[in-house]
Amino acid sequence: MKKLFPPRLILIIIAAFIFTAVGAYASGDGEALSIPKVLLALLTVTIAARVGGEVFAALKQPSVLGELIFGIILGNLALVGCNWFDFLKADYSAKVGIELLAELGVILLLFQVGLESDLSKMMKVGASSLVVATLGVVTPFILGWGVAALLLPNEGFYAHMFIGATLCATSVGITARVLMDLGCIQTPEARIILGAAVIDDVQGLVILAAVTGIIEAANAGGTMQASGIVVIVAKAVLFLVAAILIGRWLSKKTFRMAVYMRTGDAILIIALVFCFLFAYLAAIVGLAPIVGAFAAGLILDEVHWKARRRLRGEDNVDSLIKPVASILVPVFFVSMGIQVDLRNFASPSVLAFAAILTLAAVIGKQVCALGILEKGLNRMSVGLGMIPRGEVGLIFASIGSKLVFKGEPVVSAATFSAIVIMVVVTTMITPPLLSANFKKHPHKPDPKSPTVEGGIDL
Amino acid sequence: MKKLFPPRLILIIIAAFIFTAVGAYASGDGEALSIPKVLLALLTVTIAARVGGEVFAALKQPSVLGELIFGIILGNLALVGCNWFDFLKADYSAKVGIELLAELGVILLLFQVGLESDLSKMMKVGASSLVVATLGVVTPFILGWGVAALLLPNEGFYAHMFIGATLCATSVGITARVLMDLGCIQTPEARIILGAAVIDDVQGLVILAAVTGIIEAANAGGTMQASGIVVIVAKAVLFLVAAILIGRWLSKKTFRMAVYMRTGDAILIIALVFCFLFAYLAAIVGLAPIVGAFAAGLILDEVHWKARRRLRGEDNVDSLIKPVASILVPVFFVSMGIQVDLRNFASPSVLAFAAILTLAAVIGKQVCALGILEKGLNRMSVGLGMIPRGEVGLIFASIGSKLVFKGEPVVSAATFSAIVIMVVVTTMITPPLLSANFKKHPHKPDPKSPTVEGGIDL
Repeated sequence: MKKLFPPRLILIIIAAFIFTAVGAYASGDGEALSIPKVLLALLTVTIAARVGGEVFAALKQPSVLGELIFGIILGNLALVGCNWFDFLKADYSAKVGIELLAELGVILLLFQVGLESDLSKMMKVGASSLVVATLGVVTPFILGWGVAALLLPNEGFYAHMFIGATLCATSVGITARVLMDLGCIQTPEARIILGAAVIDDVQGLVILAAVTGIIEAANAGGTMQASGIVVIVAKAVLFLVAAILIGRWLSKKTFRMAVYMRTGDAILIIALVFCFLFAYLAAIVGLAPIVGAFAAGLILDEVHWKARRRLRGEDNVDSLIKPVASILVPVFFVSMGIQVDLRNFASPSVLAFAAILTLAAVIGKQVCALGILEKGLNRMSVGLGMIPRGEVGLIFASIGSKLVFKGEPVVSAATFSAIVIMVVVTTMITPPLLSANFKKHPHKPDPKSPTVEGGIDL
Repeated sequence: MKKLFPPRLILIIIAAFIFTAVGAYASGDGEALSIPKVLLALLTVTIAARVGGEVFAALKQPSVLGELIFGIILGNLALVGCNWFDFLKADYSAKVGIELLAELGVILLLFQVGLESDLSKMMKVGASSLVVATLGVVTPFILGWGVAALLLPNEGFYAHMFIGATLCATSVGITARVLMDLGCIQTPEARIILGAAVIDDVQGLVILAAVTGIIEAANAGGTMQASGIVVIVAKAVLFLVAAILIGRWLSKKTFRMAVYMRTGDAILIIALVFCFLFAYLAAIVGLAPIVGAFAAGLILDEVHWKARRRLRGEDNVDSLIKPVASILVPVFFVSMGIQVDLRNFASPSVLAFAAILTLAAVIGKQVCALGILEKGLNRMSVGLGMIPRGEVGLIFASIGSKLVFKGEPVVSAATFSAIVIMVVVTTMITPPLLSANFKKHPHKPDPKSPTVEGGIDL
């Protein structure tokens, strides 16, 4: 034990924490961006992520779980009288800084996942992904709607529908990180999960857009046109197809020109411009930026920058992105933990509804296992991998709490707490379940799908 | 020419720019942080930095100058009727996002400079640095005060004093970047400049704190105690000495513990924690965060993480920081350009005062060449390297414009414009002058100071 956590290291960390906390006290408050406060928040979050990850790695658990739980601890220490870290939630600069870096972190994470995914291999399991995703969206939507209608008869028709919608989308971030930690990202199961999560995200966001549209139309006294829903659906599908087809061509052309660039790090900068551009374009057409970042990672291919690498000896995109990601990605997971308010767990009725909603969310996604068309795969891992709702669920819940119908928010404060609990539990149970499952069914390298060096150009 | 700028690349870049500009129009406005807008701003700035850097590299100029000038173009295109990029100044999310990333960028830049500097070699030229810095602070202070008193008789005594203060501090960012681009960062001249710039920064900030204190005391109807000035000075000196002595010991201990860490990238994360911690602590004692980041880079030493590297095969801090810096550092230089308002150049009286103030700023720093105690060095390069006022000058000017004496701001709007022009000109003339000077006097490797492998432990 002494070797694992040398007492001096712990002392140093505690000293640093106290120091930073005291510093937060000493300095004033304001609405202008204060860089020292951002540094303080970044330091706190980074140290918490590292200590949490280290503790969970020692317990043979995915380090992402440690980052989440240490985030929850940071965010709720005020409950036991320690308000050192309140500035993470209360201070303007700390909040804005962490939010910004966390969002860049999750965008980079999905970009990394896209880079590690191979489009041609993804196509092979594309049919399975589509069936898995559709089952995994429709079932929880109906289950969630039903549970809400049964248990919350006082809430309106639209609240029930909205609660159903929050159960739809899979948060691929957690699952992807666990699969990466386990070294299983190249398995067919992982490809089905990631492919399904992307399709899921699109389907979930389409449902969200449709439900929001219906409620807004009802609020204005009318009903939504079917054509409006068709437009939302068409936009999303078109974006992904266009991104993959045009993006692949554009990437090849751009990297060919990179050979002539005189300034260094051209590969890294071009790759990041693609990542940010596609994330931005996804947002413009009404999708989550992470969908665009994933698409950008999917289209970038090692052959594109081969010439530049030969000429300048620059590194591969994967290894250039890694240092940037290892700073920013943990910020995302810790900040998700910080947003959890443990006081929600105090009300028995909220807790009961949350428990049943969580059950609906978990069971709803287990249906996904039935959607796999290939034989001999670990079906259960797909069902488990689809469980986490993570940031997508949180985003849905916060949109619902801002949506007003007849003067009342569609998602009430109590319902919001229940949704948050569902999100937290589904997110937290996935890593241990998934790693236990993968350890019980160790992956055998698939002889039928050898790695295609350099990938295939479209 | 065709090989240099393939027409297709230009087309792609223009298309991306138009697209992003149109996107900025399409989306709404607000005071909440909008991640798509941050992405749009980051994309615009990154592409501008890259294109600017590439153009200036082709013209055999330091690419940092291209980043600055393309920043000025982005910030002033509205003057010729193109308001595509107005969102960079007007939109809340774009502004906050760019400001935050730019500040992290300049902190990382100074950390990199610190990493490349060797404390023991710095000590060797420490006496020169101290004399150079002191001459370079006192002379411009007096010159600036005198010029202001002669040319602006209508402005008060305190305004004259404050204008003198804005001429004090050297902005080491620009010079460090030029020296890195030229591959001259290891020369004794570079060490004198960097050492002097750090001492300069401390001296400049002490003068700023003292002048501000005097004006505030006068405003309250009293006068400042001499003891108050002594406290400010003592705090700054103590910080640097303590940072170097304690930090070096702490770094050795922490990296020794890194050997036991199970999660990856420990070297990078610990190094960044040091960088952010020292930057934060510098801010707490009233210094600029970049001073702390430089000190952190100075104390980290390759021997400290040797054991971890041997065990895990992780990269050196320098190469791990590089990808992070190559994204963030250009954001800083472009954003400095964006802040320049070319309309200031329209008023002849402002222009005249600015010209004479700039002359005072340049001449004031040439006195530095006299402070070098070693023989046979390129004295002129030190004088030239101390010219840029950069972000420090801008920070001083903005503090002055917010400081009120008898109901009037100490630094008036016209004076502020003149100071901005001085900052821009001193910043812009340094790279070409410095690179021309270093090309005329190519550096001969110094046989008397061979590289000490691994450095010296304090």
